[in-house]
Amino acid sequence: MTQRTIAVPPEHLFPPDEWQMIERRWTPEFAARAETALALSNGYLGVRGCLDEGRPAMAPGTFINGFHETWPIIHAEEAYGLARVGQTIVNVPDVTTIELYVDDEPLFVPTARTPEYFRVLDMRNGLLTRDLLWSTPSGKHARLRSTRLVSLEHRHVIAVSYEVTLDRAAPVVIRSRVINRANPTTDHAEAGEGQEDPRLGTRLGRRVLDPRLCEQEGDRLVLGYRTVQSGMTLALAVDHVPDVASPHEVSTEADPDASEYVIAVDAEPDVPVRVVKYAVYQSSRSVPADELARRARHTLDRITAAGFEPLVTAQRACMDRFWDRADVTLEDTQNHPVRMQQAVRWNLYQLAQASWRAEGAGIPAKGLTGDAYDGHYFWDTETWVLPFLAYTQPRIARNLLRFRHSMLPSARARARELDLKGALFPWRTIRGDEASAYFMAGTAQYHLDADIAYAIRRYVDIRGDTGFIAETGAEILVETARMWADLGFYGDDGRFHIHGVTGPDEYTTMVDDNAFTNLMARLNLNYAASTMRRLEAEQPDVYAGLSAELDLQPSEPEDWERAAEQMYIPHDPTRGITPQDATFLTHEPWDVRATPSERFPLLLHYHPLSTYRRQVLKQADVVMAMFLLGNEFTLDQKRRNFDYYDPLTTGDSSLSASVQSIVASEIGNERAACRYVDFALLMDLADVAGNVSHGVHIASAAGGWMALVLGFGGVRDFDGELTIDPRLPERFRSLGFSLRFHDRQLRVALSHDLESYALTEGDPLAVVIRGEHHTLTTGDALELKVPATGP
Amino acid sequence: MTQRTIAVPPEHLFPPDEWQMIERRWTPEFAARAETALALSNGYLGVRGCLDEGRPAMAPGTFINGFHETWPIIHAEEAYGLARVGQTIVNVPDVTTIELYVDDEPLFVPTARTPEYFRVLDMRNGLLTRDLLWSTPSGKHARLRSTRLVSLEHRHVIAVSYEVTLDRAAPVVIRSRVINRANPTTDHAEAGEGQEDPRLGTRLGRRVLDPRLCEQEGDRLVLGYRTVQSGMTLALAVDHVPDVASPHEVSTEADPDASEYVIAVDAEPDVPVRVVKYAVYQSSRSVPADELARRARHTLDRITAAGFEPLVTAQRACMDRFWDRADVTLEDTQNHPVRMQQAVRWNLYQLAQASWRAEGAGIPAKGLTGDAYDGHYFWDTETWVLPFLAYTQPRIARNLLRFRHSMLPSARARARELDLKGALFPWRTIRGDEASAYFMAGTAQYHLDADIAYAIRRYVDIRGDTGFIAETGAEILVETARMWADLGFYGDDGRFHIHGVTGPDEYTTMVDDNAFTNLMARLNLNYAASTMRRLEAEQPDVYAGLSAELDLQPSEPEDWERAAEQMYIPHDPTRGITPQDATFLTHEPWDVRATPSERFPLLLHYHPLSTYRRQVLKQADVVMAMFLLGNEFTLDQKRRNFDYYDPLTTGDSSLSASVQSIVASEIGNERAACRYVDFALLMDLADVAGNVSHGVHIASAAGGWMALVLGFGGVRDFDGELTIDPRLPERFRSLGFSLRFHDRQLRVALSHDLESYALTEGDPLAVVIRGEHHTLTTGDALELKVPATGP
Repeated sequence: MTQRTIAVPPEHLFPPDEWQMIERRWTPEFAARAETALALSNGYLGVRGCLDEGRPAMAPGTFINGFHETWPIIHAEEAYGLARVGQTIVNVPDVTTIELYVDDEPLFVPTARTPEYFRVLDMRNGLLTRDLLWSTPSGKHARLRSTRLVSLEHRHVIAVSYEVTLDRAAPVVIRSRVINRANPTTDHAEAGEGQEDPRLGTRLGRRVLDPRLCEQEGDRLVLGYRTVQSGMTLALAVDHVPDVASPHEVSTEADPDASEYVIAVDAEPDVPVRVVKYAVYQSSRSVPADELARRARHTLDRITAAGFEPLVTAQRACMDRFWDRADVTLEDTQNHPVRMQQAVRWNLYQLAQASWRAEGAGIPAKGLTGDAYDGHYFWDTETWVLPFLAYTQPRIARNLLRFRHSMLPSARARARELDLKGALFPWRTIRGDEASAYFMAGTAQYHLDADIAYAIRRYVDIRGDTGFIAETGAEILVETARMWADLGFYGDDGRFHIHGVTGPDEYTTMVDDNAFTNLMARLNLNYAASTMRRLEAEQPDVYAGLSAELDLQPSEPEDWERAAEQMYIPHDPTRGITPQDATFLTHEPWDVRATPSERFPLLLHYHPLSTYRRQVLKQADVVMAMFLLGNEFTLDQKRRNFDYYDPLTTGDSSLSASVQSIVASEIGNERAACRYVDFALLMDLADVAGNVSHGVHIASAAGGWMALVLGFGGVRDFDGELTIDPRLPERFRSLGFSLRFHDRQLRVALSHDLESYALTEGDPLAVVIRGEHHTLTTGDALELKVPATGP
Repeated sequence: MTQRTIAVPPEHLFPPDEWQMIERRWTPEFAARAETALALSNGYLGVRGCLDEGRPAMAPGTFINGFHETWPIIHAEEAYGLARVGQTIVNVPDVTTIELYVDDEPLFVPTARTPEYFRVLDMRNGLLTRDLLWSTPSGKHARLRSTRLVSLEHRHVIAVSYEVTLDRAAPVVIRSRVINRANPTTDHAEAGEGQEDPRLGTRLGRRVLDPRLCEQEGDRLVLGYRTVQSGMTLALAVDHVPDVASPHEVSTEADPDASEYVIAVDAEPDVPVRVVKYAVYQSSRSVPADELARRARHTLDRITAAGFEPLVTAQRACMDRFWDRADVTLEDTQNHPVRMQQAVRWNLYQLAQASWRAEGAGIPAKGLTGDAYDGHYFWDTETWVLPFLAYTQPRIARNLLRFRHSMLPSARARARELDLKGALFPWRTIRGDEASAYFMAGTAQYHLDADIAYAIRRYVDIRGDTGFIAETGAEILVETARMWADLGFYGDDGRFHIHGVTGPDEYTTMVDDNAFTNLMARLNLNYAASTMRRLEAEQPDVYAGLSAELDLQPSEPEDWERAAEQMYIPHDPTRGITPQDATFLTHEPWDVRATPSERFPLLLHYHPLSTYRRQVLKQADVVMAMFLLGNEFTLDQKRRNFDYYDPLTTGDSSLSASVQSIVASEIGNERAACRYVDFALLMDLADVAGNVSHGVHIASAAGGWMALVLGFGGVRDFDGELTIDPRLPERFRSLGFSLRFHDRQLRVALSHDLESYALTEGDPLAVVIRGEHHTLTTGDALELKVPATGP
């Protein structure tokens, strides 16, 4: 519960619209936010939503998921085992800039007269368009239409259609650029010095991309690079296809740092001047830039031959597939009828953009909408994004877990370094090794191992993909269980304790028996043991192979089960609550309400020691456990815990609100549920955390989906059983969503009097609704009257 | 209790001698150790004991106490309130190098034929001499005698007398150099990258000293500098006085980085060639280098006019004054009769060198014998060195406390930054602000405040200097008491708790109710309250002035007393011991004995998280409290606590052994007492910690004195009452020491049958010996028969 409020957005920015985010006017104070909100991405490639002209640009950026530079982490004071290899996503050469000159006058949006101005993120079509009428200084009128897309179908492709039409004849110059911002220049170099906000990306302040190739093939540009330290390779091929009836001249110049294609047109009245720009990015950890360039050329040939329209059509087709499974409808009675609907869609759209083509990579905390958090993967993927994907795009969920599996060698090495058996996954990373320079809120979050084990179970349960266990899951389960068994110990009380860890709440670090951690570790241990036993019984060959490969001792599953059985879970009988850790309740409570609003987030205004010693939460920690392991708590426990921790929770983490909303829903605290759902859904659009200019909070976007579907919708899947217990707040007239479960497709429509459950695809589906067992079949929607609730 | 053993020193290094440390042969493997062991210093100025020729030199260094460069501390991950200003002692231009050429052949000790070789640290005279016979490649014999001193009388002065005599005529060249190593060159630049050992000094890897002055005045060199960032100024004036009967020529060259004076002599047989080199250093925080140079010239005039002999005579006089008060005699029956006596004297000599002229500065952890720990001041000064000084040179003790008082403005600002009232002294610093880049083992050691309050009380009690309170002490006491009152809080149990702190044992950090901290804070609170009450009653004017200045509220002393009274001190009734902190005993014990010896110190071989979560000690923490606050524990408690913690104590801190020895003495564990006294006294000479090459462990040297005088001698001064309860171990035949107490001078001689207590100066002295009250008067030594002890 924070004192912060949700700011009303300005009129010109994103007025209510079901499917569109419209910028009606460019203003400097909202420019950086708009760059984030209007960013495009397909999960492999992303560009921030800067103006076509490339200026003013607050934080221009083009990112390839996982394409990173490394650097040695220098610790102000050294210690054994600290993270050594910094990893930072690279701002790769940007192709979005297209400058326009009419009568030699450049279009510069902040000062231009623009009687008409619309920049529109079209979430149904997956396009960013701009429609603008410019009254030029020489009194002419130029109509500009541009359409930008990052292709969901062709993951390497960005395309921009740029068209200008004049009302009178004039010389028109279109200057299309390729700008390399990875290497510092006097223009945009920033000092490599420490930044006050630890959440920002690292500024290396040095050259990052070594040119390997720079060719001009006709008007085509082909550029190749290699990162200086990490040795990753990149190729970029760019082509321009003009469609100009008026007389014109073209010139092209290739340069590793600043290439350009310029078309000068003697534009005639009402004759459109159109150029389509196609760019193909290829990246690799090892393939030489030459070979990548060859592939990029090949793709570029195909794309340019087909033209722009097929890209647009394919984009719509992909978005249709996405919305078909993922759309959530919501009728709000409190705000403008579609304001919240728009926010819901924008959050879901971010999830599509972050994950659609993230093959062979994770999902960075900001997706590909900014370089904050250095483009690192955290537990956000497994814990927030994965449930959404498992219920809507399970194929992507599986890919993400496979990618995590590919990091197992690094996790094993890290465990060794920390004197532990098994594997310990890093708190934050791109390439697999720990990149957190602050181990107390990094490596000490051992819960990562259990979060991953939990995500595997969740995915397998939701999709019914048991084959995944033998292929990938079991190895992770064994190695994480080993880590827990070695990390903990049996105390004098005979119970299994885990000391010196940090839970999800980073305002308290290095504690003993963090409830969240111990509960999740217990699940990890039990699930690993039962999985191996089941494999042994059901797939003896697979089991034998795995056992040999992992040198699994017969006693190990027993050890895990015993540790799980004896796992110490803190409990306070007096208050009837779950202490966050062994000593949390003995600390001095922090008066969150009395803290001046300008001192939030606390992490930017108080020394860590000030928060560590007190009862104050960055994010709901026990509440999180009650959500993930809801079947291990009684409703009464949930109420008591929520009521205790809620006033201590600052919500300084963007991960917090969604979980608080879900549990508030569950315990019938409708007011809190709605309040937190607002925070979750408007986290970025209303800039609740004050840093949306650095990128989208992807986990919060997924949390918004969870708050609606799992919170209001009451969907659960404990032990693989799909249960739905709707709790639609009074405030919302209706809620509709879809779920994919064991290859069945279910559509749910909730209102305050009627509920509809329709199976649209697949075999009959068993589901428990409001405690009643039902079997749904296709073509026969179940309609239920909503029982009246008490006052 | 560690598995480590004390290595036997090689024959050629420091053979047993009562007053001398003799290097009989130069060997590369012991060169760095010898540079530390043979370092010279006066507390203001120090030089490492490198060979005259300056090469080979392992870690050449000349240091001025407090003369430092600053730099921005870059944290790998930022947080609010982290230390920002790095402070590093500067390796100032060095004057010790004097090269010798005979027949154009340079003397290079590692390869030279030297039938006679003695390098001698003469601790009675305060000189480093070398006496060497060199058989030159051309078959001549050169007799070299050099004497180096850092003047105790003239704190700015270093002088070297250098003399060479040949058996046959030959051209001789003496090249005397001034080498500036503060600025990196290709010769000795080191990367600015992180070093694995956090205890080492920082390498800035950039220019530190800006030349401001470089003059040659005849053969005199005058150099001036200013540090680039901290803006401190330095002047150095060097002169050479030759005493050469043979024909010779002199040339001089001034250069900010490498000046030299060269004398070329047609040396005649048996005619000595002698040059005396005088150097004067002046430094300041603000005085321009020009002005400092003027002062240096002035001093140089005086010194050179008087010549070398008066410096030698004054040196002996100072050392006589030191030894008269500080000497400790010890007869060991186990080793060579004088081996331990030599070690005792060497440790005491280090204390003299570290403190004698440390006016206006603190005592760095390594004195001025190396740049490890960046030349920072820690609690070592107040807690280890100050008791020694209070009992031997109380004037210096007072100066050190005054210097701490001068840091109060910084400590107040730091408290504000940490959201605390009063003042919080830094864990490590030169100029007053926190320089610890690792707050968990730095700023979190809030006990600094109480250590300083304790030291004030101790000094006042031992010297009877009550005037110090009104002048300086009260202000510190009030501000530190305020910090504690604000830091702690009243828990549900009504007790006053202090959470989230790190005690002296750095293998456990950020704990609740660290016993050491709470006990010391209680003393701080009580002493501040009683001091202010006494002032109010006895010196109302002083009290009124202080109250106004500090805005002291009448309720504050009451608040402090209540907090002290309700202070929670952990206690474990089952084991009858004092838990190190609220939860320490619940942790998994570390098996210190089973840990391979090559994995010590643990801090270089285990991640902090591995030690933090377990019961394992870097240094004796509760044992330390039992020593400092011995009157607050029963003998039974001391025994139980010692027996519990001793097996868990690695002694990875050099501060540990002395305290363990003292408490072992007290509880009658003679074996442990002797074992730890060996570790304390031989810490550096036997290189127990493996890092003596980086400098002397000054606190351990002082700890050696404490282990003998307070441990074996059984001297205590609780509540200002001098008590002596000797516990001379069987192994030692006798122990003699002196104590200055309330301006009386007492000499104590202990053996196993007779003890003598002689007052040699001052009014009659009340002292409690073995529980009996005695009043000693001058000229009438008290002789006591030692009571027989049980089996």
